[in-house]
Formats: sequence, C-alpha cells, structure tokens
Amino acid sequence: MAPTRHQLANAVRALSMDAVQKANSGHPGAPMGMADIAEVLWNDFLKHNPGNPAWPDRDRFVFSNGHGSMLLYSVLHLSGYDLGIEEIKNFRQLHSKTPGHPEYGYTPGVETTSGPLGQGIANAVGMAIAERTLAAQFNRPGHEIVDHHTYVFLGDGCMMEGISHEACSLAGTLGLNKLIAIYDDNGISIDGEVEGWFTEDIPGRFAAYGWKVIAEVDGHDPEAIKAAINEARAEQAKPTLICCKTIIGCCSPNKQGKEICHGAPLGEEEIALTRAEMDWPHGPFEIPAEIYAGWNARERGGQAEAAWQEKLAAYQQAHPEAAAELKRRLAGELPADWAAKSQAFIAESEAKAAKVASRKASQLALEGYGPLLPELIGGSADLAGSNLTIWSGSKDIKQDQAGNYIYFGVREFAMVAIGNGLALHGGFIPYTATFLIFSDYARNAIRMAALMKQRALFVLTHDSIGLGEDGPTHQPIEQTSSLRLIPNLNVWRPCDAVETAVAWQQAVERKEGPSALLLSRQGLPHQERSAEQSAAIARGGYVLRDCDTTPELIIMATGSEVELAVAAAEQLNQQGRPTRVVSLPCVEVFEAQDEAYQQQVLPDAVSKRIAIEAGCTTGWYKYVGRKGQVIGLDRFGESAPAGELFKLFGFTVEKVAEAAARL
Amino acid sequence: MAPTRHQLANAVRALSMDAVQKANSGHPGAPMGMADIAEVLWNDFLKHNPGNPAWPDRDRFVFSNGHGSMLLYSVLHLSGYDLGIEEIKNFRQLHSKTPGHPEYGYTPGVETTSGPLGQGIANAVGMAIAERTLAAQFNRPGHEIVDHHTYVFLGDGCMMEGISHEACSLAGTLGLNKLIAIYDDNGISIDGEVEGWFTEDIPGRFAAYGWKVIAEVDGHDPEAIKAAINEARAEQAKPTLICCKTIIGCCSPNKQGKEICHGAPLGEEEIALTRAEMDWPHGPFEIPAEIYAGWNARERGGQAEAAWQEKLAAYQQAHPEAAAELKRRLAGELPADWAAKSQAFIAESEAKAAKVASRKASQLALEGYGPLLPELIGGSADLAGSNLTIWSGSKDIKQDQAGNYIYFGVREFAMVAIGNGLALHGGFIPYTATFLIFSDYARNAIRMAALMKQRALFVLTHDSIGLGEDGPTHQPIEQTSSLRLIPNLNVWRPCDAVETAVAWQQAVERKEGPSALLLSRQGLPHQERSAEQSAAIARGGYVLRDCDTTPELIIMATGSEVELAVAAAEQLNQQGRPTRVVSLPCVEVFEAQDEAYQQQVLPDAVSKRIAIEAGCTTGWYKYVGRKGQVIGLDRFGESAPAGELFKLFGFTVEKVAEAAARL
Repeated sequence: MAPTRHQLANAVRALSMDAVQKANSGHPGAPMGMADIAEVLWNDFLKHNPGNPAWPDRDRFVFSNGHGSMLLYSVLHLSGYDLGIEEIKNFRQLHSKTPGHPEYGYTPGVETTSGPLGQGIANAVGMAIAERTLAAQFNRPGHEIVDHHTYVFLGDGCMMEGISHEACSLAGTLGLNKLIAIYDDNGISIDGEVEGWFTEDIPGRFAAYGWKVIAEVDGHDPEAIKAAINEARAEQAKPTLICCKTIIGCCSPNKQGKEICHGAPLGEEEIALTRAEMDWPHGPFEIPAEIYAGWNARERGGQAEAAWQEKLAAYQQAHPEAAAELKRRLAGELPADWAAKSQAFIAESEAKAAKVASRKASQLALEGYGPLLPELIGGSADLAGSNLTIWSGSKDIKQDQAGNYIYFGVREFAMVAIGNGLALHGGFIPYTATFLIFSDYARNAIRMAALMKQRALFVLTHDSIGLGEDGPTHQPIEQTSSLRLIPNLNVWRPCDAVETAVAWQQAVERKEGPSALLLSRQGLPHQERSAEQSAAIARGGYVLRDCDTTPELIIMATGSEVELAVAAAEQLNQQGRPTRVVSLPCVEVFEAQDEAYQQQVLPDAVSKRIAIEAGCTTGWYKYVGRKGQVIGLDRFGESAPAGELFKLFGFTVEKVAEAAARL
Repeated sequence: MAPTRHQLANAVRALSMDAVQKANSGHPGAPMGMADIAEVLWNDFLKHNPGNPAWPDRDRFVFSNGHGSMLLYSVLHLSGYDLGIEEIKNFRQLHSKTPGHPEYGYTPGVETTSGPLGQGIANAVGMAIAERTLAAQFNRPGHEIVDHHTYVFLGDGCMMEGISHEACSLAGTLGLNKLIAIYDDNGISIDGEVEGWFTEDIPGRFAAYGWKVIAEVDGHDPEAIKAAINEARAEQAKPTLICCKTIIGCCSPNKQGKEICHGAPLGEEEIALTRAEMDWPHGPFEIPAEIYAGWNARERGGQAEAAWQEKLAAYQQAHPEAAAELKRRLAGELPADWAAKSQAFIAESEAKAAKVASRKASQLALEGYGPLLPELIGGSADLAGSNLTIWSGSKDIKQDQAGNYIYFGVREFAMVAIGNGLALHGGFIPYTATFLIFSDYARNAIRMAALMKQRALFVLTHDSIGLGEDGPTHQPIEQTSSLRLIPNLNVWRPCDAVETAVAWQQAVERKEGPSALLLSRQGLPHQERSAEQSAAIARGGYVLRDCDTTPELIIMATGSEVELAVAAAEQLNQQGRPTRVVSLPCVEVFEAQDEAYQQQVLPDAVSKRIAIEAGCTTGWYKYVGRKGQVIGLDRFGESAPAGELFKLFGFTVEKVAEAAARL
C-alpha cells in the first residue's frame, strides 16, 4: 500500500528530529511543523530534477527560515538528490554537506544561504525578478523556454525583520505573480509565544503591499495546502502569500507548540514518544523503501528536464542566436568580444584624460560596457541621479519586463539581497547602488554575496567627507576600511576615470565573488600613466609616480587622496627626498599578487611609509608599519563644503610633508 | 492684524528656500511641503519651552525625514530657541548650529540626529517607551509628573526603509498611544514619482500593525490637521498615524509637486516667483515682527514649564524620595553607592574565580548591577535565552508598564535605534542584545549612538567561531574589528567573568558614548590577577602574565583567545623565551591612556609581537608591526563543533609557538 501523505511527511519529521539529536544541536521545530507543507509542495508542485540540480528552468525553492535546515536536507535526501543518509547523519559536522544552516555551494539543491533571517525572502524576490526578466528577454511565441516559479518558506523571524518588509513591498509593486511565499504561522519565536512582541495582522500587511493573500490555511491538511498552492499558481498579477497555521514541532506529544522544540534536540525520550505518536516504528535514519519511493523525484524530474531540453532544442532551431545567448548568460560567460572591447574602452578613457568624479566615471563605464553586457541589471536605492546608475540603455523593468533597470526605492538591505537572488538565479550580473555610508544598512547582504561567492557589484558613491554639506550622518569614515574586512569582497576605490573603468572591468570579470566600487562625489583629476602602469591597475596596486633613485619614502593612497599623494611627492622630490607614489585601488587584489610583484611595488627595505585615505587609519598600519604615518580620519565628519573639510581634517600637502618630516 | 496660519507657515517656506539657496545645497521640498503641518503642531499643540530645551517633560519632536532640516531650524528659530538668524544664514556651513541634517548636540531643540532614513521614527518609538515607562515608574495619584507626547514627522523614504516596519510594528504591539506620527505623503522621492517603486496602502499597513490611522488629511488645511492631531491625542490604546497629503515644495509655482524641488535650491528666479505666489514681499531672511510674534513660544513655554515646576515641587513634597530619584535619573547620574558596590561586585567575581561563558558572566553582572540601577532597561532581539539578557529583576514592559525589559522581537536595527531613543529621552540606560554577527543588521544605529554620544550598551554574544554548529552565517569574522572602526564606540571583548564585570561597569559609567560588549558562547577560564592587575582592566589593556626579565616577546590577545595566549606563553617561557601576555579587553580605552602607561604595557623596544584574536587580522598590525605575527581568521567559518573549529583554524599552542619561531 502506498504510504499516506502524512507518512511521507513523517519521514521529514523523523529525519529532522534524529539528525538534530545526533548532532546534539539544531532546530527540529520548524521542519516538523512544516513537514506537511513541504511534502505537498515537493510531491505535487515543485518542478525540479534531483539528478541535475543545475537545470536552469527548475523552480527555485528558498527556505528563508533556514535554521530549520533539516527540512530541506530531508526533502533533498528523500527526493533523490546526491545527499546520502551518511550526510544526514553528519548534520552540523565539519566538512559535511549538511551544515547548520543551508549554505549555497555546500549541498546540491540548496539555492541560497539562508541563515540570517529575512534575507531568503529577499533573495527569492530577486530570483522571481530574474525569471520574469529572463523570460521577457528570451521567450518567443510558442517557446516558453524560461518559465518557472519561485517558492519560499518563511517564518515569524523573517516576518519581523525589516528586510522582509522592503522586499515584499517591492515585490508587490512589481507584481511578481510567480513568487509564492508560504508563511509558517506557528505563533512561536525563540523568546516564546509571539503575542508579546509580534501581533501584526499579516494578511492585512501583505494586502497593503499589493499581494494576493490566502489566509488561515491549515498547514497540516495536505488538501488545503494543495488547494492554496493551486490558487496561488493561478494568480496572474500579484505575488501570493499563503498563511499556514502550523504547530511547531508537530507531532512531539510534550514539546509541540512550544518554544522548547524550536532550537534544541527533543531528547531521546521525547523522540521515542514522537515515534509512537507518528506511528513511525523505524529506527533513526531508517526510511522504508515505500517512503523513499513516495518521495523519489528522479524519474519525474528527469522526464521534466528532458521535456524542457526538447523545448530548448526547438527554440535553438527557431532562434539560434537567442539560444546561444541564453546559454552564454546562464553559464555566466562573458561575451566573446568583452576582453577586447573593455580593453579598448579603458584605452579610450586613458586617452580622454578627463577630470570627472569617479561616480561619473562609473556611469561612463556603464555607458561603455552596458551595450556589451545584456546580463547587467541594476539600480539604486532611490539615488539614481546621485549614484549615476542609469545609462542610455537602461530600461525600467516595471515599464518593460525585458528591461535591465530596477527602481529599488529607499530599501538598501533588500536591494542588495535581491541582487544576490538575481546572481544566484543565473543569467544576470547585478549592480546595486547607494551612498557608501548606507552600505551599513545593507552590510549583511554584502557579506552574504561574499560568502556565497556571487558576482554582484556594489556601486557606492559619495565615498568620503568629499560628500560635503550633508554632514556626518552621510560621510563615510569607517566604511571603506570596514568593507575591506569582509572576506572575499574586493573593494575598489579608484583615483580617476581610468582606474574606475578598470575596476568595473575587473568586477565584471570576477566570477568567484562580489566587488564594491567606492566612488567620489567630487571631480578627480586624470593621472598620467604609461601603458605598463595602466595594465598594472588590474593588479590592485602599482607605482604611479616614481623617483629616479631608490625611494627613501613611499606614499600610498587610494581614490580621491591619490591626487594629494602625487602633489606631496612632487614637493618632496623637489626637496631632495626621493619619494614614490603607490596607488592602491584594490588592496585585496594587490595582496593576491605574487610576492615578487608586491615587493617590486612596496619593497620591504623602504620602511619610511605614509598612507593617505580619507577614512579610518587602523588598517593602513599593516602597510606602513607601527612607526609609519597614516593621514586619515578617525572621527566623525562635519557639515560643510567639501574643500573646507579636507583642509580642516589635514588632507593637505603641508600635512603630508610634516608626516614625512616625522619619519 | 494678526497673521493668518498660512502666513505663519510661509515664514518656514521662505526661510527654508532662502537658506538652501544661500548654502547652494539642501532640501527645500519637504520643509515647504510640511510647513502647514509644522505650524499647526508647533503653535497649537507642542508642549515645549524655547527658553529651556532641556525641560524634561517637554513633548519630544522627531523629524525623521531629517534632510528637510530647514523646517526644523525654521520653527526653532521662529519660536524663540537660541538659534539666531545668523545661524539660519549659515546653513550647512562649518561649525554652524545648522548642519545639513539635524545633529543632536549641535542645535538647541534638536532631539535626535535624523539623517539616515527610518531611524528617526525608531528613535521616537524609544522616546515614547521612555515616557510611558518613566511615567509608570514615577507618577503617583494626583501627580502626573511625567506626561508628554512624542511627535514624529516622516516621509516616503522612512516608510520604505525596513526599520520603519520593525519599529512601528513593535509600537503597535506595545500600544504606545502617546506616539503620534505624521506622514508627509507627497508622492515624491528622489527618483521621482513613487508609484514606480512604492505603491503600499500605508493606512492598511499601519492598521495591520495595530495603529490608529487617520487617512487622507489635507496637509495644507490647518483645521483638518488640527482636528487630526486632536483625534490622535484622544486615542488611549494605540499609536496614531496621520496621513497628510501634501505638495512637495509648496508653493513654488513651477517646481512644486516635482522631484526637482526635493534636494536642490529652487534658484533665484523660482524663489522670486514663489515669494509672489505666497504674497511674501519680505527679503531673504527678513521676518516681520508680527510673524515672529505669531510663532514666539517663549512666554507660553515658560509658563508651561513653570506650571510643571510647581507640580514637581508638590511631587517633591509628597514623594521626596521618588522625586530625588527622578532627578538623579534625568540628570544621568549614577546612584551614590554605585562606585563602591560595583567595585565590590568585581572583587567578588575575582574571588569566585568561576569558569563561565562571558555571556553568562554578563548575566551575572546584570544580576549584580541591576538592583543598583533602576534606569537599566533592555532586551534582546528574540534571543533572551542565548544573549542572557534577563535577570531576576527583569519585568516585561508589555505586562508591567513600570517594567525594565523589552521583548524586541527579531528586529535588530529598530532595537538599537529604539535604545538610542530611550537614551536620548533621558532617565534610562538602555542595553540591547543580539548575536555579534547580527550587529551587521543594526550597524548604522550603533554608529548613530556613537555619533550622538549616547550611553547605550550593546550586548553582543556568540562572538566568534566559538559559536560552532550554526556555521558561517552566524560566526562573526570581521565584526569585532569592524565595530572598533566606529569612532567613539568602545568595544570590550573580555576574557573572563572579571573582565566582563569591569566591562559592564565601565560601559555604565561612560556618559559620552556607547559601548559594545562582545561575549563568548563557550566557557572561559578565570585568569588569576593581582589587585593591581584587576584595577588595570579598566585601562583597556594590561600585563596579565609577565616574565622575570625584560620580555623578548609580547603576546597580546582578547576575549576567548587570552586563554591560548597564556598557555602559549607558559610554554615559551619554559623554553627560555621570556614572553609577556597582554590582555586587551578594550583597545579604544587602552589607546586613551597616557603614553607612559601604554609604554609600560607594550614597550616600544619589544618589537617581537604576536596578536591572537579569532577574527580579522588587519587591525592588529598596528600593534605588532609589519613584521609581526597575527593569529586570526580572514576567511569565513564553518559549521562544526567549536573545539574542532579552533583547531582547524590554527588557534593552538603549537601555532603560536610556530609564530614565535618565525619572529
């Protein structure tokens, strides 16, 4: 006899409680509470192929309440992904494929890393945008080659986080009807029953965002869940929220419905009682063959993908160019002419020698590279005219679903997390923009891009006190240094239009992680360079001005302060102190160069060193040494015209000369 | 003839457009759009005394859309604050009292710094909590000594930011009926007409949060505004949102209603046309005497405060102890017995010599200090049992309005900004808690506490890979270093229960800024100290273990890595390499010590140095030098038991010995 739906769901419960027990840590509550929902979604709806987790047109499933990771690992295991029972037994152990929270890249079938609450739903919004945009760009009459849903589970924690508001509000405005979110309304968060701190009318809230809401669904009734998902899939204009009432930790007789089952093992005794309650006589990690059979999606998935491959073949025949381009984009490859044309653009910038703000240079780079890169999609958190993110080819995706520009509104955190979703989906290189200071608002999503090794670009303008009159709340001080601390994030702070063009090029070419471009509000003079120097920009640091002899002194600087370094070095050289200027547009890339190159630029023997950067000084002692000089800013700024501030805070040739004298 | 309400409001418009014009930068749109609302609020409702901006029972006014700062400066100037017309003329100039955004501490009457969007409304929620809690703690029958409203203006930008959702959702749950928010619904944000990115049903959204909503108020009709505010003040159970339809930049004939008037001067020509439109024949910065008279609130304010002073005198007579305590709390003074008793608690910790996690030590400190400090109010973002923020005297303010504990829900950013509001209001020392990693979510509010010099405490637990199985999304790597970069923030990372007790003490005593306490999940052994060493903890860094001769080598460490430093030094000393261990629980405080003390601890002559901290290495080169050794972690963590991770990432005596050998 085929197992019942509840029996299938109980397999998720059993694996989850047993794995958490064995690891002696983890979260059984959410997997046990959402098991029935997962069972319906995976067995009746989800379009996926366990044999090929990379099938481009699979439905995306995001588990935003990722602490309940055992739910996801259970369904991946049961449905036939390459995730054996040994991995389930190794839950939360070193180098397993089953880390504490779902981690992108560790586990086949995990679409995003969803530990930090609220970001998963925002990633899902990004994936839904990706699907709709890619479909609009590539589908042709009779060829619906891109056509999938994005499903997301989320809990009370995600709902409380501000980012869920930002992301869902925008999703409503954009009318992302293929986004279906299922809310695990179990009334419990870590501090206990949520009524003490969380009393929102969730259906009302989502209706206010312009969502279709299916309220009061019994999250343990497969037929009700199925009907709700069917209704959601029929919706043509809005994203849907399905509110499922569930019992956390179901069916643990003594712990279900209580916080105690949220984030701790149930204990052997309670597990035994739960087994009895579920009528689940099998031992830990034992799944009967008929249960496996009920879940196994390999055959169904293989057929689904094969059908799609046929569609793709037909598409290819009918629209060979579009098909080739789609394949290129999904593979994340750059166009064949990218290398030559981007290099030509850089050469052109060098020849133009324009004095422009680097934010303007960034727009020029967009103008130069945009036509080469239809995969570029971006936008700003309501600062388009300041961040200069719009180029002549920009088209609002709300006006034109095949567009490439997103008006994110004042939603920095969701913006970056949506960008991560776009990158994760594939087919796009997202760039997102705000003032550098407000990278603070988006900081953990920037971190997540780095952790997930996603190619995402952050355009962060107004990068110092050069912002001027808006004052200390808007002037970054610690942000540049602080972004450099995020592992696997490349931070570019270019000194002129040429370095900006190279920074964009390098960021686009970097497949293994994100890049931040820190750009000035104010104009920056062009720096003369030889061809060799120009080529060295891509190495992150290079000698920009040298003296005739071995330098006595090295001045290193980034961005807007390179101009000052050059002026000071000129004076010092005239005064008979041989001084070298090193421009360090990207410290991370420079540090990745071989030791010989690094020594060539910053020879160990030259111990007299000055660093100049209009921000925190701490990080620079690594390069100038304990006794070195750093001209920076370790206090908050002031509201005044930029020129006055640079003088006030000592960014002058005189101060550099004084620092040199101190050495 | 007395001026009309519109004429009074036009004074705000004139000053705003003229000041922005003179500064050649700034935001005229919001002040001109909200002038009528401000006029009604300030002239008919606001309880304040321009002669004494520090009157404790004044209404609090928060201008969350702070970029429109000229509105606030105008009403402060007009109503009689110590903010002369010269200051208005100096808008956005260096060292003026009229910086680009309202800056707390720069301008009399500015209650909070409100540049970064969305944080003002969260500060206002904190102020409203402060008022209600203080009232519940101090009012007595017939003595309503604490009884004021909190008013907040906010715009579309604030509404889009996630933090506004977090803060307003919690305000609804707490039923803060004396919080009245007025929404400047002008349909415009920087990128243009908001319908492209912001289509929420705001009344529906706030109703879902449990707010009273007064929708569709004409923001240019003084009677309608007045009626709405009256209705809001009559509400007894809920916070109120008044949605005012306004025209941005009203009454500029060619620019009103458009984005172009949001953030740029109107231009001389348009200003002339606006003057004509408003029938405002006066020159720039000229305000007729009858207009000043219509706005002047000095007499009214003086009387209001005098009446309150009488109430205070009566209260003092009837309840002398409560009155004295209220005065102490409002002055931000610590209790007379604090110094002795906190010192005794530290001595007791030293005597107990307990091995506990520092998060547990923090709870012990709360248990020790809590009874001494009724001004302590705090809570966690849904991690009470993990952050250990509840002590035996904790009482939920939702259950008991005179309580001292706030269940913030999973709302890190709003939590910290609400804490800032509590601190700004006066009468409280807030502590707010989450995992260290999620300080990322709250980062800009932590920065704002530092910028505003507020005594706010951040309890940040699970401070390294020691968190273990939850994995890389939950393991801080760059957070410790990155918090140290925020100016005026003291970052404590104590190594045992004694250092934790001192960190809490020092954080409580620090009036001029916030402190973060970075605490371990895992147990930390007690470190033996002499009385002198124990006293030196408060200096931020001290010699914890010394050798008999001049040290050849210094190992410095913080928090959980001090144990390792001590063990490694022991081995090195046995091997005949005289090694000193320096514990550096707070780098900022150590750097504030005199040079002689710093030299005593870290003598220049000892150039062989090792730093150990389970996080980013960059910042430590400042202390160990270019050629020094740092044992840290510049990559993301892994999901595994903590002990395995410390080994995996090289936090072992062997690795320290290897580093020593390299020197």
